[in-house]
Amino acid sequence: MTDSLRADLVTANHVLANEGILGGVGHVSVRDPDADAMFISRSRSPAFVAESDVIRMAFDGTVLDGSDARPYKETVIHRAIYRARDDVNAVVHHHAPSVIPYTVTDVEVRPVFHMAAIFGDGVPTFEDYDAEFGRLIVTEAEGDRMAAVLGDHRAQLLAGHGSNVVGAGLEEAVLSTLALVMNCQYQFQAELLGGVQYFDDAEALSTTVEEAVLAPMVVERLWEYYSRRLPERD
Amino acid sequence: MTDSLRADLVTANHVLANEGILGGVGHVSVRDPDADAMFISRSRSPAFVAESDVIRMAFDGTVLDGSDARPYKETVIHRAIYRARDDVNAVVHHHAPSVIPYTVTDVEVRPVFHMAAIFGDGVPTFEDYDAEFGRLIVTEAEGDRMAAVLGDHRAQLLAGHGSNVVGAGLEEAVLSTLALVMNCQYQFQAELLGGVQYFDDAEALSTTVEEAVLAPMVVERLWEYYSRRLPERD
Amino acid sequence: MTDSLRADLVTANHVLANEGILGGVGHVSVRDPDADAMFISRSRSPAFVAESDVIRMAFDGTVLDGSDARPYKETVIHRAIYRARDDVNAVVHHHAPSVIPYTVTDVEVRPVFHMAAIFGDGVPTFEDYDAEFGRLIVTEAEGDRMAAVLGDHRAQLLAGHGSNVVGAGLEEAVLSTLALVMNCQYQFQAELLGGVQYFDDAEALSTTVEEAVLAPMVVERLWEYYSRRLPERD
Amino acid sequence: MTDSLRADLVTANHVLANEGILGGVGHVSVRDPDADAMFISRSRSPAFVAESDVIRMAFDGTVLDGSDARPYKETVIHRAIYRARDDVNAVVHHHAPSVIPYTVTDVEVRPVFHMAAIFGDGVPTFEDYDAEFGRLIVTEAEGDRMAAVLGDHRAQLLAGHGSNVVGAGLEEAVLSTLALVMNCQYQFQAELLGGVQYFDDAEALSTTVEEAVLAPMVVERLWEYYSRRLPERD
Repeated sequence: MTDSLRADLVTANHVLANEGILGGVGHVSVRDPDADAMFISRSRSPAFVAESDVIRMAFDGTVLDGSDARPYKETVIHRAIYRARDDVNAVVHHHAPSVIPYTVTDVEVRPVFHMAAIFGDGVPTFEDYDAEFGRLIVTEAEGDRMAAVLGDHRAQLLAGHGSNVVGAGLEEAVLSTLALVMNCQYQFQAELLGGVQYFDDAEALSTTVEEAVLAPMVVERLWEYYSRRLPERD
Repeated sequence: MTDSLRADLVTANHVLANEGILGGVGHVSVRDPDADAMFISRSRSPAFVAESDVIRMAFDGTVLDGSDARPYKETVIHRAIYRARDDVNAVVHHHAPSVIPYTVTDVEVRPVFHMAAIFGDGVPTFEDYDAEFGRLIVTEAEGDRMAAVLGDHRAQLLAGHGSNVVGAGLEEAVLSTLALVMNCQYQFQAELLGGVQYFDDAEALSTTVEEAVLAPMVVERLWEYYSRRLPERD
Repeated sequence: MTDSLRADLVTANHVLANEGILGGVGHVSVRDPDADAMFISRSRSPAFVAESDVIRMAFDGTVLDGSDARPYKETVIHRAIYRARDDVNAVVHHHAPSVIPYTVTDVEVRPVFHMAAIFGDGVPTFEDYDAEFGRLIVTEAEGDRMAAVLGDHRAQLLAGHGSNVVGAGLEEAVLSTLALVMNCQYQFQAELLGGVQYFDDAEALSTTVEEAVLAPMVVERLWEYYSRRLPERD
Repeated sequence: MTDSLRADLVTANHVLANEGILGGVGHVSVRDPDADAMFISRSRSPAFVAESDVIRMAFDGTVLDGSDARPYKETVIHRAIYRARDDVNAVVHHHAPSVIPYTVTDVEVRPVFHMAAIFGDGVPTFEDYDAEFGRLIVTEAEGDRMAAVLGDHRAQLLAGHGSNVVGAGLEEAVLSTLALVMNCQYQFQAELLGGVQYFDDAEALSTTVEEAVLAPMVVERLWEYYSRRLPERD
């Protein structure tokens, strides 16, 4: 199972890179089902992550497998979320172009199309950075504060930096990220046209909506789509 | 003829995917000229639909050929339109990025360039969803209400979801979809510049205009263009 | 020389298609230096024009070479301009996305970056269409009225339709089209930011500026760039 | 070392072209560590620059190696900056689409995401052009005035023309250019949403922030990313 998770993590990296969500920076992780640990690439751009780059890291930051590899500077983003959220098994940390503008204005991200209904309970913004590393999230305490702002939500914004999206598994986290990115793009255009009719809160929050959007048939279809779109690599 | 329709349906799927109209989701169908039925892919992303994915479905939702295949959840969108419109032989259901913003604001889609003159009679918006499946259109009654809003128009918006475009044939439905998508993009920019001079209603509605835009020579040229742009697949 | 002109015309078609200026529609022509005639493709999308598609057409619309080929419906756009402007040897008729919004609003196209200084004398808009063919330009009289609005300018807008750009040769017409398209994109963003500082008229109109922007060294560099960017075709 | 610099300069040209920063025009240079001179391509579009195109030019404009090659018209942009700034070893002169709108409005470029914190001390605008060459920078005096406006900053705008970005080395100059371009894109969207919360000046200017953004690990990861994204060329 661990082998499969490593392969899926590589695919998740490549899909997010191929769709323009992760560029030279950003990262994605998946929880190790057998320990208080996660799998994540060593410091490498998502587009070029290979299975040999994947390390296993305990939630306190100790590198368990791949100890000679250099990790990303912000692994606490992932570790703090796993520590706080038992229901989360995958985390995407990204700086998608359509999302960043919302991190520095008062306009809230709200669903404007059906697949983003899963964000109907809101997308809170973290802004209580430690001064030391600017807008990077590096210390354990900073990570814990960040995870507290995430709360039970599916996504959060990081002021003047980016966003985190979580899921019960890699496919859910990746597809939810794509839905968030699309929603931010469509909402931006709608805001400029003016008079946006956001989803009714009750509607956006209904379990049925969530089931429809993340129904196995849809997830399977989308995952085939995004993974088949990947360019071949030798 | 049925064989040819299946092949054309695959091309229509690929063209709409290649032009960024259909991504991981959305679907296109064509009427079976010999029965109260339609051809449509099984649940698969349009970019990767093959002839073997095409099923034949009666207008009541019964799968006639390909009964072991899983259909899209929203086939009633297509079936309800065919039931209501004898003149329609092809339907595109899509979530094109440039169109969605208009589905959640009061700005009406109106022609701003000559090829969109075919939408001069308006693009009505459906918003009377059943609560059960959120912004998806799943029940027969919901589909019928949606088709009633479409009326005699060439296109309609689905609030907070997407859009349907119809045509007398696959080429017309596909090219009309592309014209709608381009118009929404240009209109958005024009709205922001301000003081838009929309087409005069009489002008947009004249039969001659429609003939010019959908003249056989233009349709043939455009169809060659969009189908030759498709990447080769093995 | 005629052979060379046909080959250059094919390259011009492909460059404009490859840069997203001409899609399924639009056309480019070059004057026949030996007669009151022009070279232009038969009705075919610019991306796929080959030398065998090029026809020779007199300025009255008579097809001189390639008489069995079906011409574009709007060849009068080109013919009327050649009839009116001895200094023009190439014409691009296009519907570039960044330009169309300006054709339906009162915002004038004005230079906001150095390479668009060649449009410092203004980009007038034609809107006196014959009713018969909607926003298409089909009759000789319509074409002449259109050419009269162009006057001595390098470019004009066609209300709710597109734009024409002219040049002393194919390279100049193509590169001027690209400069117009870029300017419209940048100006749009500048208009939205607000308080645009357009070029001073005298500055934009100075001969030196024009020489700098269309200097042989720059034209040569750009032409190499755009033609080398073309995908290989078999 | 000189050989290596020439190869790196070619890569820098290709990376900036591949990311859409440099198109048919624009140029990048690197300081010759052994003389008052720089390496820069002869007049050629950055996408197609090869090592054989690289010339060595003294800061007074004399071509030292490759004397039969035709230089870009605006080499003084680079030379004037090297003359004024001992700490600068690489210069990018570009016309990136997202940056140009800021050169003709009063909206200042200010950091809205963490990687642009390096521009926290401001991005001044040069507008004191000589009339003779319009918005091109050609004379030595014009170049010196331009370098004076740059001052100690990492980047400057050129009114109605483009932008210069400098760095301690090629990688820093290229990655800083990319950060500036992304910031301008995100800031544009944020400005339109309204109520932008720019970085606190002290925060943006802190040494730690700069170190984090330009930390060797990040630079190495990004450089691998951008250079591996280059299409293969024969």
